[in-house]
Amino acid sequence: MKRIKVSNNVIRRMPRYLRKLDDLTAAGVERISSGELGRQMGLTPSQIRQDFSCFGEFGQQGYGYNVVALRGEIAKILGMDRNYTAVLVGVGNIGRALVENFSFEQYGYKLKAAFDVNPDVIGSEIHSVPVYDFSKLEESLTAIRPDVAVLCVPKTMANEVAKEVCACGVHSIWNFTNTELQLEDTDVIVENIHFSDSLLALGYYLSESLDEAEAKAARARKD
Amino acid sequence: MKRIKVSNNVIRRMPRYLRKLDDLTAAGVERISSGELGRQMGLTPSQIRQDFSCFGEFGQQGYGYNVVALRGEIAKILGMDRNYTAVLVGVGNIGRALVENFSFEQYGYKLKAAFDVNPDVIGSEIHSVPVYDFSKLEESLTAIRPDVAVLCVPKTMANEVAKEVCACGVHSIWNFTNTELQLEDTDVIVENIHFSDSLLALGYYLSESLDEAEAKAARARKD
Repeated sequence: MKRIKVSNNVIRRMPRYLRKLDDLTAAGVERISSGELGRQMGLTPSQIRQDFSCFGEFGQQGYGYNVVALRGEIAKILGMDRNYTAVLVGVGNIGRALVENFSFEQYGYKLKAAFDVNPDVIGSEIHSVPVYDFSKLEESLTAIRPDVAVLCVPKTMANEVAKEVCACGVHSIWNFTNTELQLEDTDVIVENIHFSDSLLALGYYLSESLDEAEAKAARARKD
Repeated sequence: MKRIKVSNNVIRRMPRYLRKLDDLTAAGVERISSGELGRQMGLTPSQIRQDFSCFGEFGQQGYGYNVVALRGEIAKILGMDRNYTAVLVGVGNIGRALVENFSFEQYGYKLKAAFDVNPDVIGSEIHSVPVYDFSKLEESLTAIRPDVAVLCVPKTMANEVAKEVCACGVHSIWNFTNTELQLEDTDVIVENIHFSDSLLALGYYLSESLDEAEAKAARARKD
């Protein structure tokens, strides 16, 4: 796929579009205008058209977008048709939550194996995903050659494990360890899910909302 | 706190600054220039100064920033000093992961209670957090009056539970249900952790990286 450099803000909107288009399909909607899509997503129609124009011409003047076709284009853009494989390291609470409840396959990923140090889980299968001994990580990764390593190990082990998976040639890391990974190989893609960043952003918006309500009440009292 | 409207991109950087400043303090660093902070965070010094100028004057010309003082200011901006309280609904894998492993207190939140339908966990305590019967949600929320409800229930129950917590006057929702919440009350702050959006963004960057490597190899073969 020929690519131009697209801004991160646009990239981050693409999965939202995908989710919305899936909801529309589930609701039996076959086509949608940029205006209506924008209304439903809280975006301006021109923003939507601008976003898609980074990748191609997906709509038709006067018709709008065909929901299924647009969804197909976005799925390709997001690599959902590339049969990416993943392994998960660290079958603690978060790791187990992902293996049991997160549908990797729905997003085009095959979760091939998980790794842990706990003898109670090693050798078992969770939702058909085999759990291997963490001490065998290197040889397993060399055999499996996954595209993504999902890191769910404790914070204190995060960098050590990250280093090991990179040394085995894994291209990308989905990082649930809640710490910044210090990697030497800057070609490795790291996608962080920082719970704390999210909660603190909530704290900002909550404080802003409460302050505004307080200021409004104070003005009302003066009147 | 008097507030001006700040862009979401700036707001989303504030928790990153906080993490970085905590790392600096742990490393014994007392002061830092915007240049050095930028180098370590992959931001330009002018971006950093611009971000902070939304909130006040935090640095000193020629001195840079005092790490502890700056951290204190950012913590206030993010509502960490407001003693917010939270409840968690749905003690499945994700919910349990949060109660057991996520330090709400470190970010200024007191997790007061959790709720579930499973009789095996109702009446127990997880890390000093009491688990109550989900059927008693309304009366409990009315008594506790939390600022945040952390939603970890199955997707199919997400909107029903969200509606209930809003009806009890909860100001904000930290949403782990992996679905978009349809709320009538648009004053409620919703912060989503959409695992799928994150994985799909990773898929974009991974595909882009692999395509670039492929294009580079193709050019090398021509030469």
